[in-house]
Amino acid sequence: MSALTEIRIAGFGGQGVILSAAIIGKAAALFQGGFATMTQSFGPEARGGSSSAQVILSSDPILYPYVTQPDVLVVMSQEAYTRFTPELKHGGILILEQDLVRTDRFPPGARVFGVPATRLAEELGRKVVLNVVMVGFFGAVTKLIEAGALRQAVADSVPAALQKLNLQAFDKGFEYGAQAMVRRAENGDAEGVLPTLEFL
Amino acid sequence: MSALTEIRIAGFGGQGVILSAAIIGKAAALFQGGFATMTQSFGPEARGGSSSAQVILSSDPILYPYVTQPDVLVVMSQEAYTRFTPELKHGGILILEQDLVRTDRFPPGARVFGVPATRLAEELGRKVVLNVVMVGFFGAVTKLIEAGALRQAVADSVPAALQKLNLQAFDKGFEYGAQAMVRRAENGDAEGVLPTLEFL
Repeated sequence: MSALTEIRIAGFGGQGVILSAAIIGKAAALFQGGFATMTQSFGPEARGGSSSAQVILSSDPILYPYVTQPDVLVVMSQEAYTRFTPELKHGGILILEQDLVRTDRFPPGARVFGVPATRLAEELGRKVVLNVVMVGFFGAVTKLIEAGALRQAVADSVPAALQKLNLQAFDKGFEYGAQAMVRRAENGDAEGVLPTLEFL
Repeated sequence: MSALTEIRIAGFGGQGVILSAAIIGKAAALFQGGFATMTQSFGPEARGGSSSAQVILSSDPILYPYVTQPDVLVVMSQEAYTRFTPELKHGGILILEQDLVRTDRFPPGARVFGVPATRLAEELGRKVVLNVVMVGFFGAVTKLIEAGALRQAVADSVPAALQKLNLQAFDKGFEYGAQAMVRRAENGDAEGVLPTLEFL
């Protein structure tokens, strides 16, 4: 984890955006010895059904908890994609719910990863865990936080009765992301900046 | 709702501190036309099992989302009481989970309200809804947000299968708070600053 990493997760209400942000913050702080903040704003855009959370990870206490230019942007709706992509840091990581976001060009310099998180969640029989699928995928492709820490934070953040389902969702997302990274490495661009990219 | 109201909710992990904060933020923003932010910090104290969330309500967009001196402090653990009570604004409102916080003196100038939120939640058969009981009580004693808006935000923030239970929890907390306010009015100190107070 670098000194300060800014993350924004955005989508629409009901996708569990806050919980996914809280899991990432908790994983960094509880299980890796770092600091994290999670901030959610509610305003006119929230009234329109949008949901967005900001997470900052740091090796030191965080004085200013507002994200200005995310290093990592996770978008789970077309509207979130349109609104937040311009803020992504050059060379940053853009993670898309690939069935919910349609676009034919990506921001130059971004490393873009697509995941059908909703569909993967539906395969587990509960669409509602798409946010935890997304956390797993996030873990595999960003490598910001150890998989074990994220997994423990998932277990720690959901009701006992839903723990097994959520851990399955995490594993499913993580595996999908790990495979995406393997395929990308085989294509010789694992670490490269990809100006355009079809979904993996 | 005044121009800027700072709220801190604190307790231990598993009490649903974040969700209660998110419900309050959402109620203010979605259903009353205001703005709100909710911030959670994860750090060493989180590793010790503490949980704390900050909510700011405002009639305008919020530029700096950090709470410095809360107008309202809700504490659900002894540790949270000890740590955060010194920060409470003079004349502010202190809400205690009265079975979990023991103290024989309150901060001078504070208006103090006690509620057995855990016990009320247990009466509904699900201790886990103590946070929503607390939101109801918060609504009744602070009068910062309309009951209808809070109730709608509760319904909007929980899975459909748990909606009925959570609305019952809200109503139970709200009623308990409303009765507390009536008793306090009968004692002639509804609006007064109470230097010391036994639990209602």
